[in-house]
Amino acid sequence: MKKHNFSAGPCILPQEVLVKASEALINFDGLDLSLIEISHRSPNFVAVIEKARHLVLELLNLEGKGYQVLFLQGGASSQFLLSAYNLMKDQNGKAAYLNTGTWSSKAIKEAKLFGELAEVASSKDKNFNYIPKDYIIPSDVDYFHTTSNNTIYGTQMHSFPEFNGINVCDMSSDIFSRSLDFSKFDLIYAGAQKNMGPAGTTLVVVKESILGNTGRTIPSMLDYQVHIAKDSMFNTPPVFAVYTSMLTLEWLKDLGGIKAIEKINNQKAQLLYQEIDRNPLFTGVSATEDRSKMNATFTLNNESHSDLFDTIWEEAGINGLNGHRSVGGYRASMYNALTIESVEVLVNCMQELERKA
Amino acid sequence: MKKHNFSAGPCILPQEVLVKASEALINFDGLDLSLIEISHRSPNFVAVIEKARHLVLELLNLEGKGYQVLFLQGGASSQFLLSAYNLMKDQNGKAAYLNTGTWSSKAIKEAKLFGELAEVASSKDKNFNYIPKDYIIPSDVDYFHTTSNNTIYGTQMHSFPEFNGINVCDMSSDIFSRSLDFSKFDLIYAGAQKNMGPAGTTLVVVKESILGNTGRTIPSMLDYQVHIAKDSMFNTPPVFAVYTSMLTLEWLKDLGGIKAIEKINNQKAQLLYQEIDRNPLFTGVSATEDRSKMNATFTLNNESHSDLFDTIWEEAGINGLNGHRSVGGYRASMYNALTIESVEVLVNCMQELERKA
Repeated sequence: MKKHNFSAGPCILPQEVLVKASEALINFDGLDLSLIEISHRSPNFVAVIEKARHLVLELLNLEGKGYQVLFLQGGASSQFLLSAYNLMKDQNGKAAYLNTGTWSSKAIKEAKLFGELAEVASSKDKNFNYIPKDYIIPSDVDYFHTTSNNTIYGTQMHSFPEFNGINVCDMSSDIFSRSLDFSKFDLIYAGAQKNMGPAGTTLVVVKESILGNTGRTIPSMLDYQVHIAKDSMFNTPPVFAVYTSMLTLEWLKDLGGIKAIEKINNQKAQLLYQEIDRNPLFTGVSATEDRSKMNATFTLNNESHSDLFDTIWEEAGINGLNGHRSVGGYRASMYNALTIESVEVLVNCMQELERKA
Repeated sequence: MKKHNFSAGPCILPQEVLVKASEALINFDGLDLSLIEISHRSPNFVAVIEKARHLVLELLNLEGKGYQVLFLQGGASSQFLLSAYNLMKDQNGKAAYLNTGTWSSKAIKEAKLFGELAEVASSKDKNFNYIPKDYIIPSDVDYFHTTSNNTIYGTQMHSFPEFNGINVCDMSSDIFSRSLDFSKFDLIYAGAQKNMGPAGTTLVVVKESILGNTGRTIPSMLDYQVHIAKDSMFNTPPVFAVYTSMLTLEWLKDLGGIKAIEKINNQKAQLLYQEIDRNPLFTGVSATEDRSKMNATFTLNNESHSDLFDTIWEEAGINGLNGHRSVGGYRASMYNALTIESVEVLVNCMQELERKA
């Protein structure tokens, strides 16, 4: 029996994607060769990466708007560095960051090596359980950086401030999950391992016109323009991760794209948060208006129920429900590939606890 | 029918590795979850990366000698940067490089951003078809860098100069293929996609005592010490690539380790070079004494035979035999997983051409 996989990432992927990827490892494209045994410059793989690139632009509604799509390595953690390296001016560089959690904090730490940083607001005072609002972004910064969804705390930015400069967003944990006007962002990056594919590749979507303006000498592997010039093939790309991402993007398109998945994601989140609010044994962790539709964090009001609850959900075939160590309690990650049936199973477990506790 | 895969990389992997990896994508470790859907911090995956790390030290005979093993992202191309960043002194940094081809040249280019470079010798004068000898390595450099095997030109360093300082080697295309005293190197790096696994992870084997001595502030993702402190889990590792590398290392150990595969690799290389030298229609590209046992480069003496030869080997089920664009002709890559039977098929094709041409 397949598990109900609520893991925070790496996380659930569509079963048909897993089956196709598994088959391609034995015989890819009818070549009598494995996907991972062929040259990345073979027409078969070039077609894969091209298709993935086009699917990204199509799904994000960014076609013909001056954006380039890259599939790099090194995770979003590398992008903390690359975004600053490629965008912060060499002379008097300055950037603004909104601090909404661990990942924002890490992004801030890396960017500080390149210039002056303005942390416009932080929700650290309440262990990042809300999204700060009503802050001022200095007008003279080279860019403004946000983190759209915070997996650990279960918060999500449901709106973004209007900033009339370069907007950078780490969308690792909610890209392709909801409709946004993506053209309001100049640089979007996302580790693949939530809604796009397996760990091992990182999506970068960048407006080409913002690049090349810092006056810095950038090492080749850290330079977006180098990767753009080589169509993400400056060095050997992570073939398997790119292929599996392409399959996942294709699955999403076939499903009806972001609008269709957003509807399902809203239903899943509503179902679970409704139960968290209704069930007297549980309390949600994050501020109601900032709740993430990807990661719902909640705790038991009475810690003594935890053994019983853990037994109930484990027996129901649920996996990956434990909260992050810095928050505790539970975290239900409801990424695109998680079905509403899995959320129903979780809700049933919560109700079973209510009856039995 | 499975192809005879002579691709230069990504390249052939053992069939049993492909089968196991394919199965793990559907159900890993009996968890009823895919390998790429579980947390990288789950005990099941932690066991994988631990095992891979130990296999590397065991196979290279480096256990208990102060080395750390990392599985990073970004290919050897990233290591061109990281090796210089982590080893070249901030004040008056200086390093020596032996230039034996495209990859050495790229390594040199990146390192120049960090200090003064001494190119001790280069074989560029003859399109890198030999390995320079009899050069002097300045004694005051922070490290000396070599490239052990040059895939494009088909050359290999069969001996290394004695240098009484820090020795760095890019072994991307011949690691795990031959016996060496690996303890003579302080930093070894290798993109996985030849003898270790699929594209998407890079092996770094580093003597811990050489780190932390530059006086530089290094961004987290570029700092070997950061990755060591987190057991290659500073950020989400490329789970699939690490797992498949572990399987390949396990396959090699079961086969008898490097000594056993070296014997087979010697047989394969001897068989092919013997035919290149014997067959009047072909000529080897690289200097005889520097011939690579991984990549044999050769050309037709009469270009007019190329259509017929291409037809013969393609019909025999051979794949990936075309030479790199900067050398032309043919390149037969004979990595660990290629069987001697595949080399016999190629030799037969060369003899068939001799009969038919």
